[in-house]
Amino acid sequence: MRSEPQILAFDVFGTVVDWHGSIVREMEALYPQVDANAFALAWRAGYQPAMQRVRSGELPWMRIDALHRLILEELLPDFGLSHLGEAERQHLNRVWHRLQAWPDSAAGLLRLKLRYTICTLSNGNLGLLTNMAKRAGLPWDCILSAEVFRAYKPDPACYLGVAQVFDLPPGQVMLCAAHHDDLAAARACGLQTAYIERPLEFGAGAPKDVSPQAGNDLHARSMLELAGFLGC
Amino acid sequence: MRSEPQILAFDVFGTVVDWHGSIVREMEALYPQVDANAFALAWRAGYQPAMQRVRSGELPWMRIDALHRLILEELLPDFGLSHLGEAERQHLNRVWHRLQAWPDSAAGLLRLKLRYTICTLSNGNLGLLTNMAKRAGLPWDCILSAEVFRAYKPDPACYLGVAQVFDLPPGQVMLCAAHHDDLAAARACGLQTAYIERPLEFGAGAPKDVSPQAGNDLHARSMLELAGFLGC
Repeated sequence: MRSEPQILAFDVFGTVVDWHGSIVREMEALYPQVDANAFALAWRAGYQPAMQRVRSGELPWMRIDALHRLILEELLPDFGLSHLGEAERQHLNRVWHRLQAWPDSAAGLLRLKLRYTICTLSNGNLGLLTNMAKRAGLPWDCILSAEVFRAYKPDPACYLGVAQVFDLPPGQVMLCAAHHDDLAAARACGLQTAYIERPLEFGAGAPKDVSPQAGNDLHARSMLELAGFLGC
Repeated sequence: MRSEPQILAFDVFGTVVDWHGSIVREMEALYPQVDANAFALAWRAGYQPAMQRVRSGELPWMRIDALHRLILEELLPDFGLSHLGEAERQHLNRVWHRLQAWPDSAAGLLRLKLRYTICTLSNGNLGLLTNMAKRAGLPWDCILSAEVFRAYKPDPACYLGVAQVFDLPPGQVMLCAAHHDDLAAARACGLQTAYIERPLEFGAGAPKDVSPQAGNDLHARSMLELAGFLGC
């Protein structure tokens, strides 16, 4: 590390919570006839293209809740779920508020919180992140989101925005994430970066390459290992 | 109450934390030659006029940290503190990040948090509120601020913004505050309101009239009584 960071900002989907496993479990319980793994992967695959439509100006600013719903509407016919009513669609769309944390997340964050200010830096909206944190016991000091900065990662406004909120130089903020592209964009803004291995982000059927890449200040196999590296 | 609220949003300065007592204690320790009570009252007296300069467009959008500093610069000569250097001024201005909670605040919020989502709705900026919460042990589920909505209370954008963040009708949000004007503005936006008595907000030398006023859904003598009223 260059110098000790003051703020640890965390990517959430995939890094802190297990979107794939959580969606698979809910789908298996609610709609056992559907290929839950394929459904979860398809929903998530629509995520970057949907945000790109906002970034490009094709769509006005809207929250991830609304983008998740747009994608869901396109998916339902492909998975034989066109018959779902409005209440069922709303409930299903809110699965993203109910994502479960990786087993080490809450314990690691509690340790890190003793020494650092810990916040989210997620493209998820504030309400989603708050509801998720309350269910999953994620002890954030502050919830920051693309919704605050009106820009989706990897827009520099998000990374620089965290530093501005805390009136600190970017080098005193560390982004912690399971995605190298997110970390690279943060690094380009002057933030420190920590990679966290989440080999099962896309499920056991599609293990992810989590080998170290150059440029990150830290590379941790878990949130607990990250806490250890940071003296907590 | 009309119906049970989902979200409890709290005013902070005066309602959750004791700005007067905290500033008096720091001033007495740092600058014993100054009339600490008069200094605290003068600083706070500049608060509404400074926000009004932003609301009117005379000043561009800026955070409370910056407005506190503007007011401080005007105060220092009046109190014989023109000699303070930049580091001392910065430290003093950050006293607002170090405000201490009323003795019942953390305990009451912990009880309320068991059943409700509790958030701030303060004109204080996000970094200030986060630093304060960490020091004072305020267990917010989410920190919302004028900084998120780019508008200062009593602008309706703040009150309606909380409802929008959580995708709820305004009537499912309750503003809890020690100030009737704040509550009246929230009520005009359809929020429920709870008054919390803080008779010593301006110090023991200037006790505040905390008698009930019509229109509030609840009137509590403390945060613990509020928790009791709300079934926590």
